[in-house]
Amino acid sequence: MTIPTISPIHDDALARALTAAIDNKTKPPGSLGMLESMAHRIGLIQRTTQPCVAEPALIVFAGDHGVTEEGISAYPQSVTWQMVENFLAGGAAINVFARQNGCALHIVDAGVNHDFGTRAGLLDRKVAHGTRNFAREAAMTPQQCAQAMEHGAELAANLAGNVLGFGEMGIGNTTSAAAIMHALTQLPAADCVGAGTGLPAAGVLHKQQVVQQAVARHAAVHRFAPLDVLASFGGFEIAMMVGAMLKGAAQRKVLLIDGFIVTSALLVAAKLQPAILDYCVFAHCSDEHGHRRLLEMLGAEPVLQMGLRLGEGTGSVLALPMLQAAVNFLCEMATFDSAGVSGNVSGQAA
Amino acid sequence: MTIPTISPIHDDALARALTAAIDNKTKPPGSLGMLESMAHRIGLIQRTTQPCVAEPALIVFAGDHGVTEEGISAYPQSVTWQMVENFLAGGAAINVFARQNGCALHIVDAGVNHDFGTRAGLLDRKVAHGTRNFAREAAMTPQQCAQAMEHGAELAANLAGNVLGFGEMGIGNTTSAAAIMHALTQLPAADCVGAGTGLPAAGVLHKQQVVQQAVARHAAVHRFAPLDVLASFGGFEIAMMVGAMLKGAAQRKVLLIDGFIVTSALLVAAKLQPAILDYCVFAHCSDEHGHRRLLEMLGAEPVLQMGLRLGEGTGSVLALPMLQAAVNFLCEMATFDSAGVSGNVSGQAA
Repeated sequence: MTIPTISPIHDDALARALTAAIDNKTKPPGSLGMLESMAHRIGLIQRTTQPCVAEPALIVFAGDHGVTEEGISAYPQSVTWQMVENFLAGGAAINVFARQNGCALHIVDAGVNHDFGTRAGLLDRKVAHGTRNFAREAAMTPQQCAQAMEHGAELAANLAGNVLGFGEMGIGNTTSAAAIMHALTQLPAADCVGAGTGLPAAGVLHKQQVVQQAVARHAAVHRFAPLDVLASFGGFEIAMMVGAMLKGAAQRKVLLIDGFIVTSALLVAAKLQPAILDYCVFAHCSDEHGHRRLLEMLGAEPVLQMGLRLGEGTGSVLALPMLQAAVNFLCEMATFDSAGVSGNVSGQAA
Repeated sequence: MTIPTISPIHDDALARALTAAIDNKTKPPGSLGMLESMAHRIGLIQRTTQPCVAEPALIVFAGDHGVTEEGISAYPQSVTWQMVENFLAGGAAINVFARQNGCALHIVDAGVNHDFGTRAGLLDRKVAHGTRNFAREAAMTPQQCAQAMEHGAELAANLAGNVLGFGEMGIGNTTSAAAIMHALTQLPAADCVGAGTGLPAAGVLHKQQVVQQAVARHAAVHRFAPLDVLASFGGFEIAMMVGAMLKGAAQRKVLLIDGFIVTSALLVAAKLQPAILDYCVFAHCSDEHGHRRLLEMLGAEPVLQMGLRLGEGTGSVLALPMLQAAVNFLCEMATFDSAGVSGNVSGQAA
């Protein structure tokens, strides 16, 4: 796909106006912590001192991974399609949290190794029945990678709201995300690989070897161009998220970034268009090993730190009330003047 | 007041049933992190594997502090009553967040140095026009302390819901809370005293001296009995919270604990009835110096870590969607069996 241009959100005059609006609210300056920085960012993205959260939506992309042949997951590959059925029936964690927080939920078959047939509520964008095993060959062809990104961009473009969250389901995809992180950050594989859905220590070590060897073999014949890395190790769901993120930011939506796998997709997108980071709210720091380090590399400040490591976009949807709180305090709170409240006795802006 | 007996929530059979119910949900075991421990705790409090959040309420207690004479706050004392007016008008942060999250809000004059007259929406439980200056004498008499606690218990007893949050407003009350913490934990004053609403470094040092000298003088003539410490340094709003917390736990409500000042009230309550800690969900770790240490001493795991330091109960109300998410996943998610999803290939409980 054609990579859209993404503009930085920088705007000096608006940034000053937002800071003044935030500091004039009846509270000590800075006392709402991350809600204040979030309100400031969303204002810049939406180009207003009165930002809002309108029709927030989360897309869950599901895909299978050939690398599961290497025994790198605690669950069998069939869990991917079974969980898609669970999403469609409304019984998964993401369904529960999306209902609670008024978030529209869209489920996409990005490349599950299963034939669903035509199913109400399932968006069929299947690129193939799972990727190939990246321990032996590239996970996808450049054409498949481009196609997945196009689908993601198209899906993002057709959503009405101004906040777009991302979720994923795919047995094996922490291995894929770890390989992408290892290849694009050059951090040791041990810093990138974790227990996923719950591997024992020996399994983590094996997974680490799979990742290390695959990336090393890749390095011997390729350079680390982002799209090349994505095609070599990515899942279809990851590539689709890359396309959706780029399109969403180009349309000046707030991107709500979930856990390790979603952040690995963002890493690829940020290598292509660094300004995309301006549009991101990082929902949480997951317990998956590697996520904290990846967030640090991206300069991210995660909203929640609750030991989540479920995926599906659950962290994103759980962070939505905080996003709402950020715009609400900015739009609804009284100012010191309007409420007749005395300011800081030091005469400092308050 | 008569201190109510509070029973530990311990129940082996129910604890096992809750763990099984949580682990049978369609997710890797443990992957919802703190939501899982929260669901477990709320189940034990409510004595059910199907807990709920019903009619959550937050009481904001406002009171003034004689110790403001010592110049320990960045804001003048009049801000206390001005902010109460702001609460009544609906313009403060706590109003915005309570509206957003469906939390009933009750505003109590516990002892503000201002005559409000009869006002719709303001619960008049004024013990006095502010406490006395604890840098020179005890903040309140034992009778005033008991009266404040009685009022708190009565207010808590008359609320219908099963989740009770606490908030406070009182210029000078981080000084009061720091003195309580210093006296009851024996930690150095430097570990207990912070910038409050925004003191500069020199102001923090002065505040620390005020706290240290007052507690040292107190120690020379008294022992550190919890109620004695409360009367000596507490605000009326803090004493009222102690009474409300004890009553709420005795009625097996979930107590939603906010920031530094609310936690200092809990410290007093826990010295009187240690089992009260079983009933607490710690909403957040605030940026007020001393709060993290105090939480550690109480063995608390705060839900949010967002750099909040506003008070009013804002952290509690912001954490409410997480409480709701905890009971929702337990009550609404499918199980592996019901959804036809394969378990962990290791055969581990999943």
